[in-house]
Amino acid sequence: MNTIIQQKFAVPYQYPVCFSEAIFETSNEQFVGLLGKDRLSKILFVVDEGVAKEHPLLLDQIQAYSRAFSDRFILASDPIVVPGGEASKNDEAIYKQIVEATHLYGIDRHSYIAVIGGGAVIDMAGFAAAISHRGIRLIRIPTTVLSQNDSAVGVKNSVNAYGKKNYLGTFTPPYAVLNDFNFLKTLDDRDWRSGISEAIKVALIKDLSFFTWMEGHATALAAREMEPMKSLIIRCAQMHLDHIAGKDPFEFGSSRPLDFGHWAAHKLEHLSKFRIRHGEAVAIGIVLDSTYSFLKGWISEEDLSRIVRLFKQLGFSLFAPELAGENLIKGLQEFQEHLGGQLTIMLLAQLGQGEEVHEMDHQLIYQAVDMLKDFQEKSTLVNS
Amino acid sequence: MNTIIQQKFAVPYQYPVCFSEAIFETSNEQFVGLLGKDRLSKILFVVDEGVAKEHPLLLDQIQAYSRAFSDRFILASDPIVVPGGEASKNDEAIYKQIVEATHLYGIDRHSYIAVIGGGAVIDMAGFAAAISHRGIRLIRIPTTVLSQNDSAVGVKNSVNAYGKKNYLGTFTPPYAVLNDFNFLKTLDDRDWRSGISEAIKVALIKDLSFFTWMEGHATALAAREMEPMKSLIIRCAQMHLDHIAGKDPFEFGSSRPLDFGHWAAHKLEHLSKFRIRHGEAVAIGIVLDSTYSFLKGWISEEDLSRIVRLFKQLGFSLFAPELAGENLIKGLQEFQEHLGGQLTIMLLAQLGQGEEVHEMDHQLIYQAVDMLKDFQEKSTLVNS
Repeated sequence: MNTIIQQKFAVPYQYPVCFSEAIFETSNEQFVGLLGKDRLSKILFVVDEGVAKEHPLLLDQIQAYSRAFSDRFILASDPIVVPGGEASKNDEAIYKQIVEATHLYGIDRHSYIAVIGGGAVIDMAGFAAAISHRGIRLIRIPTTVLSQNDSAVGVKNSVNAYGKKNYLGTFTPPYAVLNDFNFLKTLDDRDWRSGISEAIKVALIKDLSFFTWMEGHATALAAREMEPMKSLIIRCAQMHLDHIAGKDPFEFGSSRPLDFGHWAAHKLEHLSKFRIRHGEAVAIGIVLDSTYSFLKGWISEEDLSRIVRLFKQLGFSLFAPELAGENLIKGLQEFQEHLGGQLTIMLLAQLGQGEEVHEMDHQLIYQAVDMLKDFQEKSTLVNS
Repeated sequence: MNTIIQQKFAVPYQYPVCFSEAIFETSNEQFVGLLGKDRLSKILFVVDEGVAKEHPLLLDQIQAYSRAFSDRFILASDPIVVPGGEASKNDEAIYKQIVEATHLYGIDRHSYIAVIGGGAVIDMAGFAAAISHRGIRLIRIPTTVLSQNDSAVGVKNSVNAYGKKNYLGTFTPPYAVLNDFNFLKTLDDRDWRSGISEAIKVALIKDLSFFTWMEGHATALAAREMEPMKSLIIRCAQMHLDHIAGKDPFEFGSSRPLDFGHWAAHKLEHLSKFRIRHGEAVAIGIVLDSTYSFLKGWISEEDLSRIVRLFKQLGFSLFAPELAGENLIKGLQEFQEHLGGQLTIMLLAQLGQGEEVHEMDHQLIYQAVDMLKDFQEKSTLVNS
């Protein structure tokens, strides 16, 4: 006697992704407008140490903002300040500190964690929020180009474990995302630049016109002009959001088109012990897989030159000593293991259109690495 | 300049809940039929120590089954045997052992964790599976009445922390649930009985005919007859599955109708240091809130008598010394904190129909507790 009941349902999600400036000026009601109105909200703030240092008035502003809207929310405690960057994801004591704070300060499932920082801190605090009470509402306030246009608009969170990036995590959409462009002004040049590689990535696999737009604004972007950067971030965020909503938001399949260039990037970050930042590694990974696409005969020499030229105009390095040797290739297997199932790698069928493959030729990868070294060393480009 | 993008999507889920017997006999292909066919599957087994002791051939059977179907799956390692009951959820070293095994044995997102045990072990292993690689496929093989008809068919997982039950966890539907009725034969009387309280719960708030059916089979159920127990489990599981699929599977709201009787039950488990098992505590919690409903004038004395009589016929105790005093009342606040938002408690409008309230009268609770003591001490029932 075998009885089978098929369970079937869908879980609906929605959240706003807002773009604003000076969000903790009391004249700006966007933050407080995100909160539920059925009761006095309780909020636990988590702040990236690097952001707190660059914005020495931030913690006081948050206190003043909470006093101005004391009829709408209270602070659960003083903001918790955590180390920035991968350090926040490497040490489990840090996410546990946030989990413990939810216990100590009675943060329930209808209360909020508001996290201000770069992508790593947002990943880490998001994991703490996702597993406490099976999910506390998370308001993400990303402060870097990379997190504003990519990581913080999506549905993932994570910490690192066993030397593997993002080994622990969940798929949990945020309650809201609130981008404040003012945070970008204090980024160092490397972080300003880094996030642009995710925009180039999404343009290359989905939208040639966006790529062409970036070529036209490369000089302005490199010169840190704000207006083109705002446009770039909003457009890039929109494309990521559309992709996530499109199909398989929680990645039940093996395909992950938005990870163009990322198999090598993840490995490179680890091999360099995170000397190379994520966006910098993604730039190298994109150029590597674009070069591989060229060597496969899929894109033309001129197409490849356009890609290399854009990255160089923006100031990216296209080579790192860690690319040499056999270690890089191990990144392919690790990428497969993380996603599960069949190896699936995005390449370029043409500019603005990705195409997935299920194996890569190691010799061609080595050849592509050699070409990257040339790109880096020569001011002139591909065979010209 | 404030730009807002509204993100919106739904994540579809489906999973089979199967009822079978002798699932690791090689003649039974139900387990192997659950696995994906695109590649050789890798499975990590986690087994409840109590189940392994009661079924000394089980581990060998799993090995033999894997040899018989070696073209379909391989064991990632020897099964991991873990302590049973709440102990498995109280010590974080236990779930971490499973997480570490996924790392050591290369369990990816398309591999499987198969967990065999009671509800606590399934909760704990489910949490480990949910956070590793952002979600490894979980096959639940529940071995108790309680887990087969309730906890293991749902979408939650958890471990305990800070002395709070289920403090850490996620909403993550399983890949499949496979119930083997043979496991019930070796349960002790307390565990055989315990799970029935969840069936009475769901009947009382949703389906009077199911309650009446149980009244008719109370003697047979108490005498451990298998056929009525199988029917009870399938019907109860179906009702839980329908409820979850109905609306708000991941409990974004504050309402949790299936937690009828549970606010007191959770507190009682903790106050008794888990001497009182979950199903036993739920029985007391149900009678408490039914008595409260009677004192509110919502259900009749005869209705209350039927409820008390059924629990007593099945052999449940209806009182525990931990009910006395003010500690119990704290359970109301903790219940609210866990769910977040407004306090929401299910009571009985009539037999077979629940109704939610947002406050409870503490004096009436004390009065109900006194009546429970009487129910327990007297063989006769309510004021008769």
